[in-house]
Amino acid sequence: MKIGILGTGVVGQTITGKLAELGHEVMVGTRDVSKTIARTEPGPYGLPAFSVWQEQNPGVKLGSFADTARHGEIVINASNGVGTLDALTQAGASNLSGKILIDISNPLDFSQGMPPTLSVCNNDSLGEQIQRAFPEVKVVKTLNTVTASLMVNPRQLAGGEHVIFVSGNDAPAKAQVVSWLTSWFDWRHVIDLGDITSARGAEMYLPIWLRLWSALGTGIFNIQVVM
Amino acid sequence: MKIGILGTGVVGQTITGKLAELGHEVMVGTRDVSKTIARTEPGPYGLPAFSVWQEQNPGVKLGSFADTARHGEIVINASNGVGTLDALTQAGASNLSGKILIDISNPLDFSQGMPPTLSVCNNDSLGEQIQRAFPEVKVVKTLNTVTASLMVNPRQLAGGEHVIFVSGNDAPAKAQVVSWLTSWFDWRHVIDLGDITSARGAEMYLPIWLRLWSALGTGIFNIQVVM
Repeated sequence: MKIGILGTGVVGQTITGKLAELGHEVMVGTRDVSKTIARTEPGPYGLPAFSVWQEQNPGVKLGSFADTARHGEIVINASNGVGTLDALTQAGASNLSGKILIDISNPLDFSQGMPPTLSVCNNDSLGEQIQRAFPEVKVVKTLNTVTASLMVNPRQLAGGEHVIFVSGNDAPAKAQVVSWLTSWFDWRHVIDLGDITSARGAEMYLPIWLRLWSALGTGIFNIQVVM
Repeated sequence: MKIGILGTGVVGQTITGKLAELGHEVMVGTRDVSKTIARTEPGPYGLPAFSVWQEQNPGVKLGSFADTARHGEIVINASNGVGTLDALTQAGASNLSGKILIDISNPLDFSQGMPPTLSVCNNDSLGEQIQRAFPEVKVVKTLNTVTASLMVNPRQLAGGEHVIFVSGNDAPAKAQVVSWLTSWFDWRHVIDLGDITSARGAEMYLPIWLRLWSALGTGIFNIQVVM
């Protein structure tokens, strides 16, 4: 399938690399193509510079946000949460219209120092903001509650005995995303939280997730729901 | 031990009942003693009227918030989160001073309809508000992430293989509360999230907890951390 991934950070690279490995035609989108190519210093979390990474992943195309949205039969938003609405505006409503948009971003605002706050929460969420700004897009929020390497390889932890969530207004789109989570990444436990307003829950989970990261000393953890 | 519990709702009754059963000298505090005694209609969640409940729990004393804070060597805040600061003001700083205050409340605001919002979140929390308003009190936030019956009986679910959190600035007070969680209620997995600012994480977990309740069709669930 042709898949467009918005964002060349650690989440974008991880998702893109896995989908390319699975044989999909992937394009990854960036704000400024020439700047992304020119970058030579490694990124955070030991991430290689994009050009180095692309040599290791030769099947991956790089494009603008608009190129990438046009390329994808579906689009995955892995851009920085506080810049997401701007990135999607650059991607273009007409290039996104009618498509499933898998939103895996978090509206984390580091501008006030640590710990980060959420730039939107409580009576709204980034998932809802995207859905309101792009009503013709089928927004499904998912994967934002785990670190990048777990998103694409949940079985590395406890044989996959932990949970991921989906939120969205369009039931068939949500069912399709659940089936992709299973077939692409081997997620075994997916809980449907409800319509896109339930993205508030998934995003407001981030503060405890960040504290758990500190308490546990690793980002490679997740939760299982026990009942 | 002499324990004061603020709040006669389902959480207050459940905690009080369990601590009385364990042989502690408990007093439960209410805003208006005569009103609480006069109430004859059952509460929500199938809760008996307080007077009926007290007949079944004859060891439990009822008092004002101030009586209760004075009575307790330690105090447990099980009052309605949006009324907590007012309840603690009535309890009186001098009656609370130097004591451990276990805060198990959530600042859920139902006034705007469902789902409730949080009356404080993101760059602050109820736990922090309490600690700022009563600097001489050792506030430990815990138990707010599970339904009342699980608070006092975690073993009813998966043999207790799920987790509870603590947040607070005073390390010895926090260690003491962890030991009570184990000895009173048999909690097996307690994670220290950090200082009282980490109460943001525990309180902002509520929106996903409420969605999970809807999705799962029961409040008798919890999470286990998998790593």
